[in-house]
Amino acid sequence: MKAEIITIGSEIMLGQTLDTNSAYLGRRLASIGLEPTYQTSVGDNKKILSGVIKGALERSDVVITTGGLGPTVDDVTKEVVANVLKRELILNKHILSQIKARFQKRRLRMPKRGRHQAFLPEGATVLDNREGTAPGFIVEHNKAVLISLPGPPRELKPMFEDKVFPYLKKKFGTRVTKTRLLNVVGLTESAVDEKLGDISKREGNLEVGLIAHPTGVQIRITAGGPVGNEESINELISQAENGFRERLGDYIFGVDEETLEKVVGVLLSLRRKSIAVAESCTGGLISHRLTNVQGSSNYFLDCVVAYTNQAKIDILKVRRETLNRFGAVSARVAQEMAEGIRKISGATLGLAVTGIAGPGGATQKKPVGLVYLALVSDDTNLTEEHHFSGSRETVKLKASQAALDLVRKYLLKE
Amino acid sequence: MKAEIITIGSEIMLGQTLDTNSAYLGRRLASIGLEPTYQTSVGDNKKILSGVIKGALERSDVVITTGGLGPTVDDVTKEVVANVLKRELILNKHILSQIKARFQKRRLRMPKRGRHQAFLPEGATVLDNREGTAPGFIVEHNKAVLISLPGPPRELKPMFEDKVFPYLKKKFGTRVTKTRLLNVVGLTESAVDEKLGDISKREGNLEVGLIAHPTGVQIRITAGGPVGNEESINELISQAENGFRERLGDYIFGVDEETLEKVVGVLLSLRRKSIAVAESCTGGLISHRLTNVQGSSNYFLDCVVAYTNQAKIDILKVRRETLNRFGAVSARVAQEMAEGIRKISGATLGLAVTGIAGPGGATQKKPVGLVYLALVSDDTNLTEEHHFSGSRETVKLKASQAALDLVRKYLLKE
Repeated sequence: MKAEIITIGSEIMLGQTLDTNSAYLGRRLASIGLEPTYQTSVGDNKKILSGVIKGALERSDVVITTGGLGPTVDDVTKEVVANVLKRELILNKHILSQIKARFQKRRLRMPKRGRHQAFLPEGATVLDNREGTAPGFIVEHNKAVLISLPGPPRELKPMFEDKVFPYLKKKFGTRVTKTRLLNVVGLTESAVDEKLGDISKREGNLEVGLIAHPTGVQIRITAGGPVGNEESINELISQAENGFRERLGDYIFGVDEETLEKVVGVLLSLRRKSIAVAESCTGGLISHRLTNVQGSSNYFLDCVVAYTNQAKIDILKVRRETLNRFGAVSARVAQEMAEGIRKISGATLGLAVTGIAGPGGATQKKPVGLVYLALVSDDTNLTEEHHFSGSRETVKLKASQAALDLVRKYLLKE
Repeated sequence: MKAEIITIGSEIMLGQTLDTNSAYLGRRLASIGLEPTYQTSVGDNKKILSGVIKGALERSDVVITTGGLGPTVDDVTKEVVANVLKRELILNKHILSQIKARFQKRRLRMPKRGRHQAFLPEGATVLDNREGTAPGFIVEHNKAVLISLPGPPRELKPMFEDKVFPYLKKKFGTRVTKTRLLNVVGLTESAVDEKLGDISKREGNLEVGLIAHPTGVQIRITAGGPVGNEESINELISQAENGFRERLGDYIFGVDEETLEKVVGVLLSLRRKSIAVAESCTGGLISHRLTNVQGSSNYFLDCVVAYTNQAKIDILKVRRETLNRFGAVSARVAQEMAEGIRKISGATLGLAVTGIAGPGGATQKKPVGLVYLALVSDDTNLTEEHHFSGSRETVKLKASQAALDLVRKYLLKE
């Protein structure tokens, strides 16, 4: 079963409004096995819209339009739909009285074009609009179904969830599709691809894809099957997940919405450890990310962002000699920073980062993107050297990810 | 002249990634009179993509694809483009050496499929990728132009701005549309609307809109006309801007891409002042934002994130008595934190924030969202009390914005 989404509105084409409806509808349709194969956006242009709707009805089982149902002259959806399906637009008295009541309640006079919204294509099923005046509708046409929804997400979502989703599920919901994301850190997209090798191929009901981020990679596992087979679908996904975990091991840090800072927080809580951070080039980002997690005050103690050498000496007690001999961007300084913040705060773990975020600050021996990490505890003394590429903000982001991952790897071994 | 955008990726169709490229490209194309007439998204499916590209080349002058250029088996764009245009894929040695160098610099081995990215359709103009390994390309085909860009926005945007936009402007630009954004802090959307009153209406070639953000409001002024009328368009926008500035004064902190941290940095440099920050509930976000600005090491000295009372006492020298009497979330503690960090660092300005980001930590007298700010210098001692709404991350963001704005307002008066 193929589904297709058409979003209508010149403000979308001109980039003044970001279309979030397509992603939302895509997610919901896929969950019942209605694979979205095309998503098209067009402006408020009758001829173009007419062509797109005709084409969609020829190739897809379900066509959903969003937008263009309002009262203004720009709103052409109903007229075009009626034309394509060769049906009349008919006044629906029930809707007209609802619209009138809505205006009365707000003590406003109904504008002339308000009446316009009460016309629907002949034979359409009305979808009431809880959040606005423009109703939506469903028309069955030959073997296909055309569904028109209003554009504003706060009107579209309740209408879709209350009426359209149950309708589609009953009529077409022959399949169930489930998705799991595996979040990977410390490997590039190509490295993940290589490690997965042949097992990353699409295979039967299982589909695997990679999504690259500056901070890592997400593996998307999607599987579907006939309604009633939820258990075997879950099993299929879990099997795939196990296969990937065998090859990637601890490079996988979490699933679905889990962030690295969240996972680090859970591990710190489990191991009953506290952490303090000394940052230089990351400028407070590691601390910011750790404290984005609700409840982080249970394990995060404090952070010093020592941007100047003086602050490294005065606050973190880095030795002037170490700075002179190795330079501020060095493994040794990272180590002394980590020791310093750990001593000051009394935390179990001291984490430190020093590097060159760029675009300035590079020397011949120390390029932009060079970053040193250090993690110290009673019995640990780890350092790492990294070379990151990208803009200042990207280097900061990648360095913060590597630093959090250093903590995670250490805690996993504990 | 008609333009058309095709975004490629199953993750978009399934709603796992929100397509923001189409809106961005639509905005930029429209600004030079290349009206985007169709925007289509499809999955990583060769047959479907092939049909969409063929159709697009028949009806449009400019076709831009985004996504599907990476090294994995999912990435089908180049193969399909070559097929549709009946051209060979040819190894580009220059790109291959660039990709190899990129991996070498990061001390990584180039994976086998890395080579795949160095193949381009015959006769294509290469678009270098500053932020990743996948190059883009331009192919002229009959009267149309096909441009393929990588999917990740941070790779696509610099490539588009550096190479594609100037190319399109020269080849197709007939109209000019200019937009100026005025960035406002400290007022809600309705407050801005009220202050602007009648002058915010659309009028002739001028269009005005408000965009609300958690951190403030942007006023969007847009005006257009045929190529050659740049001066009168600029004049129209400047007149509108002057009118808005008369009504809003220093609530406008910058234009276009200028961030508050950037503006604060410029003011600190101009006034030859340095700053140090003591954070509690914002968790390092203020320091992170200040250090996102290139060259911030000239005025930003250091930051202490004192999440615990002990850190406030030990590092920032907040008096235990003050903490006991007023509580950690109080104007007095904010003040002592600001004095403490100023003394430690020797900075001209000490900035401090303490508050409750939530969702936990509230008491009957101190609700979630209560935040105190303090700014101290030789002759200044300012505090502010704020009540912010929203999630933990939103409260952190709003508090960081208010803190930076406190610094800005102070520096403006200096």
